[in-house]
Amino acid sequence: MAQDMTLLWGSGSPPCWRVMIALEEKNLQGYNQKLLSFEKMEHKSQEVLDINSRGQLPSFKHGDVIVNESYAACFYLESQFKSQGNKLIPDSPAEQAPMYQRMFEGLTFYEKLSNSNPSRLFNTLELQNKGSSRSLFVYIFSFYTDAVIYYNWFVPEGERHDSALKRNKEALVTELKLWEGYLQKLGSGSHLAGPSFSLADVTVFPTVATLFRFGLSAEKYPKLGEYYALLKERPSVKASWPPHWLENPKGQDTLKDM
Amino acid sequence: MAQDMTLLWGSGSPPCWRVMIALEEKNLQGYNQKLLSFEKMEHKSQEVLDINSRGQLPSFKHGDVIVNESYAACFYLESQFKSQGNKLIPDSPAEQAPMYQRMFEGLTFYEKLSNSNPSRLFNTLELQNKGSSRSLFVYIFSFYTDAVIYYNWFVPEGERHDSALKRNKEALVTELKLWEGYLQKLGSGSHLAGPSFSLADVTVFPTVATLFRFGLSAEKYPKLGEYYALLKERPSVKASWPPHWLENPKGQDTLKDM
Repeated sequence: MAQDMTLLWGSGSPPCWRVMIALEEKNLQGYNQKLLSFEKMEHKSQEVLDINSRGQLPSFKHGDVIVNESYAACFYLESQFKSQGNKLIPDSPAEQAPMYQRMFEGLTFYEKLSNSNPSRLFNTLELQNKGSSRSLFVYIFSFYTDAVIYYNWFVPEGERHDSALKRNKEALVTELKLWEGYLQKLGSGSHLAGPSFSLADVTVFPTVATLFRFGLSAEKYPKLGEYYALLKERPSVKASWPPHWLENPKGQDTLKDM
Repeated sequence: MAQDMTLLWGSGSPPCWRVMIALEEKNLQGYNQKLLSFEKMEHKSQEVLDINSRGQLPSFKHGDVIVNESYAACFYLESQFKSQGNKLIPDSPAEQAPMYQRMFEGLTFYEKLSNSNPSRLFNTLELQNKGSSRSLFVYIFSFYTDAVIYYNWFVPEGERHDSALKRNKEALVTELKLWEGYLQKLGSGSHLAGPSFSLADVTVFPTVATLFRFGLSAEKYPKLGEYYALLKERPSVKASWPPHWLENPKGQDTLKDM
């Protein structure tokens, strides 16, 4: 059990989900955890700021050790609990190299998703229409990429909005084809960096799951679809599935024509 | 010697520099390397695309293994050459945790720098004035963050330009204060994650060096200045110093009032 660990998290945030999957994989159930609301600005509460001066989720503490960045927490957990639960970094160079490579390409993948998802944009515009202040709007999106903030801030007009969205979508399609190709090469039933589940899956699966939640077509991207179907049944993934996705199993279909 | 390794790189690119420092630290001198020009679009040449379908630098190959993402290459080199050269990941949990944490905060630090550096913006505008196409301009900046691209694309007007630049600068100042505080807490002569040089330094130092090249004041940020002065004398850093910085030791003073 992991009673000396505390995780502050938000539902549906891929960075939070990464850490939760890693904790499950390392058999570290039973940690203290608190689900916070981005909408209520709870990621800027004193409770978070005490651990995380950036006011972001996840915020993670193990004893006196603080590791808030999601990738950092995943590396830390694997390193500190090497022989516990599932091994998340393979031994052989031939498997390690693609694992590291896909993990860090995964940051670009996540960024392209964040930039291209109009439902997030929609949420933002809603807030603006309700007369919320600019600073509120920035805070709410601070756990996504800066680019999303820029996008909304600088492009109020309809025309620019459309062209930017189109370009962002094209960038996401290019990215999706890359990952579809990676999986194609690896063959059926493979994980992201080879036959074994690894940190590459821990960090990138939440992005893939978000894509399908927002309507990505498994017919157009069959390898990603197969990968998603395989991983969503994995115990660590099921145990950490975003609770508001369970309540509302279907997100907006904003990515269906992607 | 490292004759089974090939690095394609660009001068002054922090991601490229990270890999070069790691190679030096692991005593992997003598690798094949080729300096390419972003301005001449050489990062989109067939030579690069053969290794790196994203057309980015660094592109790195070790035998048949390809690891292009700079953080991935640093992890890979440390893992494959653990007992060679300097140890870059400390053993103790107390040192490992801040190392991972600072490494990944370093990505945010780099992003804030990229967004805030008006000299890069200036170069872009120059290109636009010379009638270069939008796609050229995007390619040249594709090794920085998307946010830079957005910034230039969506904000042609002078007024918005100024306010965005102001906001980006404020975000960078906030970031600088965080890092100044981290170093302050660690005490004099420390490295980024504690007493020892680690992957945190390998990955974040190129950002710090870029800040000072563009005029950051060591009087305003004395701890960062001390850290910069310490690290720039380190053999691995000296051996990999960007060649065009040697030719023109002083960059534009765009960050001097930061």
